[in-house]
Amino acid sequence: MTETRVSTLSVTAASAGWWKVLFENPPINMYDPGVLRDFQDLVAKIETDPNLKVVTFETANPSFFMAHIDLTQVGGAAATDDPASSTAPGPTGLPPWPDVLVRLEQAPVLTVGVLRGRARGVGSEFLLALDVRFASQELGILSQPEIGFGFFPGGGGMERLPLAVGRARALEIIAGGEDFDADTAERYGWVNRSVADADLDAFVSRFAERVAAFDKPALAATKELLNKRVRMAEPADLEATQAKFFQVSAGPLVAGHGQRLFELGGQTDGDMERNLGDRLLEMQG
Amino acid sequence: MTETRVSTLSVTAASAGWWKVLFENPPINMYDPGVLRDFQDLVAKIETDPNLKVVTFETANPSFFMAHIDLTQVGGAAATDDPASSTAPGPTGLPPWPDVLVRLEQAPVLTVGVLRGRARGVGSEFLLALDVRFASQELGILSQPEIGFGFFPGGGGMERLPLAVGRARALEIIAGGEDFDADTAERYGWVNRSVADADLDAFVSRFAERVAAFDKPALAATKELLNKRVRMAEPADLEATQAKFFQVSAGPLVAGHGQRLFELGGQTDGDMERNLGDRLLEMQG
Amino acid sequence: MTETRVSTLSVTAASAGWWKVLFENPPINMYDPGVLRDFQDLVAKIETDPNLKVVTFETANPSFFMAHIDLTQVGGAAATDDPASSTAPGPTGLPPWPDVLVRLEQAPVLTVGVLRGRARGVGSEFLLALDVRFASQELGILSQPEIGFGFFPGGGGMERLPLAVGRARALEIIAGGEDFDADTAERYGWVNRSVADADLDAFVSRFAERVAAFDKPALAATKELLNKRVRMAEPADLEATQAKFFQVSAGPLVAGHGQRLFELGGQTDGDMERNLGDRLLEMQG
Repeated sequence: MTETRVSTLSVTAASAGWWKVLFENPPINMYDPGVLRDFQDLVAKIETDPNLKVVTFETANPSFFMAHIDLTQVGGAAATDDPASSTAPGPTGLPPWPDVLVRLEQAPVLTVGVLRGRARGVGSEFLLALDVRFASQELGILSQPEIGFGFFPGGGGMERLPLAVGRARALEIIAGGEDFDADTAERYGWVNRSVADADLDAFVSRFAERVAAFDKPALAATKELLNKRVRMAEPADLEATQAKFFQVSAGPLVAGHGQRLFELGGQTDGDMERNLGDRLLEMQG
Repeated sequence: MTETRVSTLSVTAASAGWWKVLFENPPINMYDPGVLRDFQDLVAKIETDPNLKVVTFETANPSFFMAHIDLTQVGGAAATDDPASSTAPGPTGLPPWPDVLVRLEQAPVLTVGVLRGRARGVGSEFLLALDVRFASQELGILSQPEIGFGFFPGGGGMERLPLAVGRARALEIIAGGEDFDADTAERYGWVNRSVADADLDAFVSRFAERVAAFDKPALAATKELLNKRVRMAEPADLEATQAKFFQVSAGPLVAGHGQRLFELGGQTDGDMERNLGDRLLEMQG
Repeated sequence: MTETRVSTLSVTAASAGWWKVLFENPPINMYDPGVLRDFQDLVAKIETDPNLKVVTFETANPSFFMAHIDLTQVGGAAATDDPASSTAPGPTGLPPWPDVLVRLEQAPVLTVGVLRGRARGVGSEFLLALDVRFASQELGILSQPEIGFGFFPGGGGMERLPLAVGRARALEIIAGGEDFDADTAERYGWVNRSVADADLDAFVSRFAERVAAFDKPALAATKELLNKRVRMAEPADLEATQAKFFQVSAGPLVAGHGQRLFELGGQTDGDMERNLGDRLLEMQG
């Protein structure tokens, strides 16, 4: 297969032990089949590099970390776009995207989300599968807006969000579909910490440089052991939720709300996507 | 059976999808057999209304959300007051009050507590069984004061409190019997959020109107799925705790402390009930 | 065996129901085989005193609550120093130190940590096994610095830390080896509460006096029941982690970092121990 596509994930080695990954998929960093392929390629490299200890994930677009799933791809297109790399179950036996996230959880390196801009739906779910999450106090926004589209979080959100924030706050987040700022997300445990934007890069660098300086066997043993000690998303649960998610999202209700999002200017960089939390009810109209 | 009793729970439909429930049981909103019956009636309606999506629970008395169990009813009276509706196990097979709470947890609508005033003992336990809890920053007070009476939280408190706040904070709360303000309760995860009293009604309305505007199948699927994914109070545990709770509370120790509460002016709207946290040790005298 | 050693744990009975334990092991309150023996003696007394209800643990050194394990003792010496009291499995069947901690968790009294100064490694792990933890806002410092030495938390840290703070924050803490102040520790759930140092003693006294005034059967029933309801560190996990911890810490990597700590002035009261968080990377040099 000839591959001329430029990856949406560019990797810079800050050092042998620390990779900085920059996500860029204009105009609003949506998740689509190409993004999935890029993550599949990247995870394989992360798993096997002998010197790698920490990977930070940042956005090239300070307004959007990862907007949400490309709705033109929901319900079939995303699944059939590139069978060879996209739809076959991954090494974990899970569907492609849950497979990527579980492999990141199990990889012998520390994964760190650096949140600027909006991480809605799959963006939140991606962050929840990372080991550590730091957010810009001014720019970070988190949301699970699926209820406004007639469905509910897939991609492990139903499993990992309540593990991070508890049942009551998970229900508030999912049933309300509201935008949450970084300070509230910190209080809820959705992110580890909300950091003033001017300090965030230095804060992340200090943390990543420390992790990269320590011994990999100690880090790998820590993650391996901790993963056995804590409750994590169960593969069977991830698979069951994913199946139900695609079943519900293939229905006419979701198609109608999705159509309305396009009419309102969604999936472009405009007021609808920037203020989706405030305007989520308009999709019911 | 002729029923002329006025319900302690008045229901106003803010819309087809949102019921506002106001609790009023003068003088201090105690829990008693009549309150139990009213909840039993209400839950049956909540479970079956096809259009209902969200129910908010507020107090008519800004000083007392739900004071505590009526101690004249503990140890027998509460259980025999009205056999037909009060003591028979409910549809879940659990005793009446745990049955009500588990049914609220499982109902395909979102339940929201709006805390003003004191929610002690059963009041806290009721809130803990709701899906979401918002508290007035100035007026909300939470407590599990049972230790001052010689027993420990029943009604699911022993199960749901540590799920919300963790072991260390649950032990601090239960062993100290202290009053907690809303900001501390938010930091502990006892409530979702502490909101300035002047903003609380608007905050709750915005949230409830959103939930009521979204699609019921998505909401129902969310709760059903999330309830399978998170740790919840186990029916067998609820039943075992409840049995032990009634066994201990029937003893002379509890009777003595209860008698002392009456001598000190408890169960009326006065300083003892308003400042029970500060004055809990006086019941030892 | 003649025992002329002065205990590192001095006990003062503030009342029949409240013991104040002061830890003093100059110069920096390290954990060593003598400390273990003192804890073994103390726990046996705590378990059997009929009137005791609450035990508070404080430090005689406001700069160090418990610095860390004495590295001259890791890898063998600590285990063989005094076979009769130190290495035989305790009544729980666990190795000595995990045995002490599990017995404190199960004892029918409330244990309360009062954190001033640095609690690193075993110091943090000791606090995590206590029922309740209060910290001085200005003086309290928590850390799991093991990664800087080439290993990972033993002593139940791998089990109890994520139960208290969740997976993401546990990984941040363990992989970064950073010092955490009391306010951050409160937000993370590492301590119950951060209290201004000037108010901490009065705060702790109020709490301990309350617990000591209530009925012991209610307190004992609370702990017994709550311990069945919440997830706790599993004995089999504690044992497996401990075995792996001693295996890794016996290796050359840890010996090298430990040697470097001594060269840098560690294990004495100086800048290295006071600022271990900032200087942890120097041990790699």
